[in-house]
Amino acid sequence: MSILIVGSVALDTVEAGGRTVVDALGGAAVYSSLAATRLHSDVSIVAVVGRDFPDEHLATLRSERVDTSGVEVADGLTFRWSGRYHEDMIGRDTLDTQLNAFADFQPKVSEDLADAEYVFLANIDPSLQLNVLSQVRAPKLVVADTMNFWIQGKRPEVLRLLERADVISLNDEEAWLLTGERNIHRAGRAILGMGPRRVLIKKGEHGAVMHGAGEVFSLPAVPIETVADPTGAGDAFAGGFVGCLAATGADEPAAFRRAVAYGTVLASFCVEDFSVAGLLRATPQAVRERYDHLARMTKVPEAC
Amino acid sequence: MSILIVGSVALDTVEAGGRTVVDALGGAAVYSSLAATRLHSDVSIVAVVGRDFPDEHLATLRSERVDTSGVEVADGLTFRWSGRYHEDMIGRDTLDTQLNAFADFQPKVSEDLADAEYVFLANIDPSLQLNVLSQVRAPKLVVADTMNFWIQGKRPEVLRLLERADVISLNDEEAWLLTGERNIHRAGRAILGMGPRRVLIKKGEHGAVMHGAGEVFSLPAVPIETVADPTGAGDAFAGGFVGCLAATGADEPAAFRRAVAYGTVLASFCVEDFSVAGLLRATPQAVRERYDHLARMTKVPEAC
Repeated sequence: MSILIVGSVALDTVEAGGRTVVDALGGAAVYSSLAATRLHSDVSIVAVVGRDFPDEHLATLRSERVDTSGVEVADGLTFRWSGRYHEDMIGRDTLDTQLNAFADFQPKVSEDLADAEYVFLANIDPSLQLNVLSQVRAPKLVVADTMNFWIQGKRPEVLRLLERADVISLNDEEAWLLTGERNIHRAGRAILGMGPRRVLIKKGEHGAVMHGAGEVFSLPAVPIETVADPTGAGDAFAGGFVGCLAATGADEPAAFRRAVAYGTVLASFCVEDFSVAGLLRATPQAVRERYDHLARMTKVPEAC
Repeated sequence: MSILIVGSVALDTVEAGGRTVVDALGGAAVYSSLAATRLHSDVSIVAVVGRDFPDEHLATLRSERVDTSGVEVADGLTFRWSGRYHEDMIGRDTLDTQLNAFADFQPKVSEDLADAEYVFLANIDPSLQLNVLSQVRAPKLVVADTMNFWIQGKRPEVLRLLERADVISLNDEEAWLLTGERNIHRAGRAILGMGPRRVLIKKGEHGAVMHGAGEVFSLPAVPIETVADPTGAGDAFAGGFVGCLAATGADEPAAFRRAVAYGTVLASFCVEDFSVAGLLRATPQAVRERYDHLARMTKVPEAC
């Protein structure tokens, strides 16, 4: 089962916990593809970088089994994001955003990639997300991520995307913004009414909730005592989610719950280090151990 | 197994969701005892009310199998609390607090109640909590609740209480205040180092976490689409926790996890209505159904 991921590849400058990394490998397509390849080998990304993008970063992706044939190298510089996390490792300030080559990104899905069965549309302009969908032939599952910027600025396009996606991924504040419902379960149900079969609401250190028809699955985050850098956690979550589903091809309700648990596990690796270092340490054995830990630490005993 | 609960009995005036109730039955001992009696019949409270306290409220407690022989009727008025919840049903403003008879409360544990096997010390002055402990003979389990007011104002007494309690219950902000650790898992571990065998950290709509030696149990809240009044949720949680443990007398790790799940269930009934109306609707069958729902909605499938 092939996975196609479309999103940003970035050079991130991040301040967190008294440490700063400069121009580190980042971007939603990077985090999500590296999470997906922990679980499944057939992962391709479509993205754009500038001529300044270090070859070593592309080599890292390839050595981790990410197909980078869809990464276009455009004139100009690579997309850069810079941010500073607050002491609580939850709030953050964006210090600088330079779209650079990303500003004119027109995703082109090659003949090969157009046959992808699993598609993750990471957070980019919903018009581009819809455009990608018009290029893929018959995906088995489409997962789309979005954010407040598009919900506010391109609401009609976001609503069209919701009609086309099987699963939508967003955080609790974005769910509120999209629906006007502050209660996360009302918000989830309202978004279900907009089209998707399942809604993933990410709550950061509080975990995630998945709503489906007549179904709620709620999972806390893996306990992490030292969060180094939360950047990319939501994308790692989505990558783990899609990677798990593609690995088995299953689509019964339990398969989606399992996918949420794998997403939760991959997000926990992501936040343990800067850039992609935490994800790269997520060996199959480490992932499995953490998955089993998560299952144990949420297991409700039989009623008394 | 007998349960002794010491805490406030109050008349609450609450504004939430556009509705106001005036002088409604409330207080930590009320919420926790009514939650405990959903699961176990032998529940007694030690508390104080004023001469104005309506007989019907005492009759309600008795008809729900709460032993009120330890409720002292003092000269003066009953403790009153008044608060207004924000639109998000999470934040709240305290509008008025009148300690009245509660100001001079000196809990007296009768000969009969001094044999209690399970003791829940609801949130009162830690000096009084310690005084109650000196009056009970050989409790099997002591659960204590505290809050920011005492952590800041009576820290030495709170620390002594932590040395004496088996389980401490507090919310995430209070855990931070007590330990200086913003990360909930570091905070939980730090509190374990202060004496108790288990630490319950309540996270409101995000559920609860229990830390023990080499053990973490994390559970989301039961999804509630319409929260009417969050008052008492933490006390209902503690009451359900103690009630479940006393019902079986078990003390292996799974028994404590089950107790957290019952606490989570009772808290969910509590917030569905004003005052104790939600808890009174928690029939054994309704509690069991919601418990099973909670177990299902958090069940992590086998790894793939």
